[in-house]
Amino acid sequence: MSSEKPILHLYYRSFCSWRKGIDYKYCPVNLLEEAQKKEEYSDINPYKFIPTLKIDGNVLTQSVEILEYLEETRPEKPLLPKDPYKRALIRSLVQVITGDIQPLQNMKVLQYIESTGGNKNEFAIYCITRGFEGIEKQLAKTSDKYCVGNEVTLADICLLPQVYTANRFGIDMKKFPLIQRIANNLSELEAFKKAHPQNQIDCPAEEKNKIS
Amino acid sequence: MSSEKPILHLYYRSFCSWRKGIDYKYCPVNLLEEAQKKEEYSDINPYKFIPTLKIDGNVLTQSVEILEYLEETRPEKPLLPKDPYKRALIRSLVQVITGDIQPLQNMKVLQYIESTGGNKNEFAIYCITRGFEGIEKQLAKTSDKYCVGNEVTLADICLLPQVYTANRFGIDMKKFPLIQRIANNLSELEAFKKAHPQNQIDCPAEEKNKIS
Repeated sequence: MSSEKPILHLYYRSFCSWRKGIDYKYCPVNLLEEAQKKEEYSDINPYKFIPTLKIDGNVLTQSVEILEYLEETRPEKPLLPKDPYKRALIRSLVQVITGDIQPLQNMKVLQYIESTGGNKNEFAIYCITRGFEGIEKQLAKTSDKYCVGNEVTLADICLLPQVYTANRFGIDMKKFPLIQRIANNLSELEAFKKAHPQNQIDCPAEEKNKIS
Repeated sequence: MSSEKPILHLYYRSFCSWRKGIDYKYCPVNLLEEAQKKEEYSDINPYKFIPTLKIDGNVLTQSVEILEYLEETRPEKPLLPKDPYKRALIRSLVQVITGDIQPLQNMKVLQYIESTGGNKNEFAIYCITRGFEGIEKQLAKTSDKYCVGNEVTLADICLLPQVYTANRFGIDMKKFPLIQRIANNLSELEAFKKAHPQNQIDCPAEEKNKIS
């Protein structure tokens, strides 16, 4: 394993954040300036998405891939339990958020919706609400302090940024009391405070006080 | 582990198909009739998506979750190698397909695009093309007979249905020679032939000859 410090290419407001208590160098990619499309970045990440993580001499290019890789190579702070069914429950929440909600309300898709005469906010709210309805129902079976039981898992790491995005779109979180309660619990944890967009080096000053 | 035969709730044309050489009972869910929204189904699958797999006395509700669960509980026919970096490469392809392409071109989203005056085919083609461009570039580094080397992996299981969908939308596959070559190789395998939409019990007769 390489002893070099891992490098994380990210955007401060990016949804696909992750933290696992690993020291790394943060390398901002400004999505508003479409920096992810520039050749030097797309050579690293052919999908032109963020995040990209350079670690152990390898390049990893997708958030779930990165989470699973860290889980397998840094097992000392597990974010997946050992039981296969619990792992599956956690991964289903991860997939709903990272597959069925987030890609539908990211910048590029909303720009397309708008360019064809659609209402991008309405679309984002529809996608997040539909996803949250399923998640809320699922959490009634699986949650305690966090999404699945009382330990922070990969599901929680994906949930909190999605709640942050839901707030940006003005979604009424009163309809989702379990999601909101878990988000509150997570927000108290030091690792999640550090990972908050407003605490990233590329967060513009004017945004720092606006986002919560 | 329960000895009952696993039950798979699916739609014949569903993208999220999976096979791992496991005997199961196929239970069709007609998306065109919105059967996934009915209460008896949403009690099983709160996300109202397919597939749902009942197995070992548990209910699993998302395709990637199902694939990973089968990988962990049925390790005798592995679809992920042992090396963490190779696993990550495979999972990045899985995530691009199941997260960044498929949810954007599924029925519900395209209906929304159309309802707001957009061109749903154009949107689907845009999403698939953008995803395939990244995948093609990635495959130049990782592929041989299949997506990652010479063994069938989870990436291949996700790739072939996406190529089938690309064909439905009339995407010019000449631009993606590696994807097409791998799709051809996969199509020759017995397990993939069995999993083809036209070989599912709920495939309408008039569709059987149309789809390839």
